[in-house]
Amino acid sequence: MHSNTTHLQLLVNMTLTSWATQNKYLNNLLDTYSEEQFSKEVAPGKNTGNYLVGHLVAVNDAMLPLLGFGSKHYPEMENVYLKNPDKSGMAKTSIPELKEQLKQINAALDKHFNSLTVEEWFEPHTAVSSEDFAREPHRNKLNVVISRTNHMANHIGQLLLLK
Amino acid sequence: MHSNTTHLQLLVNMTLTSWATQNKYLNNLLDTYSEEQFSKEVAPGKNTGNYLVGHLVAVNDAMLPLLGFGSKHYPEMENVYLKNPDKSGMAKTSIPELKEQLKQINAALDKHFNSLTVEEWFEPHTAVSSEDFAREPHRNKLNVVISRTNHMANHIGQLLLLK
Repeated sequence: MHSNTTHLQLLVNMTLTSWATQNKYLNNLLDTYSEEQFSKEVAPGKNTGNYLVGHLVAVNDAMLPLLGFGSKHYPEMENVYLKNPDKSGMAKTSIPELKEQLKQINAALDKHFNSLTVEEWFEPHTAVSSEDFAREPHRNKLNVVISRTNHMANHIGQLLLLK
Repeated sequence: MHSNTTHLQLLVNMTLTSWATQNKYLNNLLDTYSEEQFSKEVAPGKNTGNYLVGHLVAVNDAMLPLLGFGSKHYPEMENVYLKNPDKSGMAKTSIPELKEQLKQINAALDKHFNSLTVEEWFEPHTAVSSEDFAREPHRNKLNVVISRTNHMANHIGQLLLLK
């Protein structure tokens, strides 16, 4: 029989491991594709590999301010890869650069993740008001990690189709 | 400042909500497709919608014995939708039947999910030895839910391409 404190630490770790596992899965997958494969649509008329990777860069980058970890590293990504669709005609970032960006952002996230105490994970993220948070305590930092892990898994499923 | 007990209950609920959210997302998505759409491949040469739904039925069904909730409801699904690939030539289950199976399995899972205490979620799942579990306490029932949620999100990403 473990104490609630031990279980709480364990479950926080399980949640962070789930994020790390999807990231590792993504990075391993990205390493198997050629630049040409990334330029292809995952299915006819759907997003390209390039767009999906840039989209994940933009979403992960936005986690930094959302979790109170500082500013985005690549704020220019939002316009091309989040606010606009793949077929916007806007210039895309090259795959080697996207992979480097992903590496930098994930290293910054990991550094902060490792410095947070269990208590701090249950603090509100920066996009929720204190009034809302009082009613909805699940809108905490750890829940951002849970939802972004599912989001990443969703797009990994699509990127797998480039094989 | 919340106690660790409150946070533990909250995080268990967040984890179960994450599972429920993906399930709801999947069910809503399945309701938007015609039978003909389900018969199509999500990308050229890849799995059909039918196979992916049957695969999720088989995986969710296997959660029942894995979590100690009893036997599978549809044990015959494993051979066609887990052990063998889409192009096996084996007869597939119809989409209305697959949707009904998914509904039955998820109702059974929900019933058990709601009856478990926080402490019980940290008990080992049925495929880990007590020796391994002593060293690896993360191999508990709740971790099965976390990994199956990510697995479902991965395939939802693919099913979205049938749109």
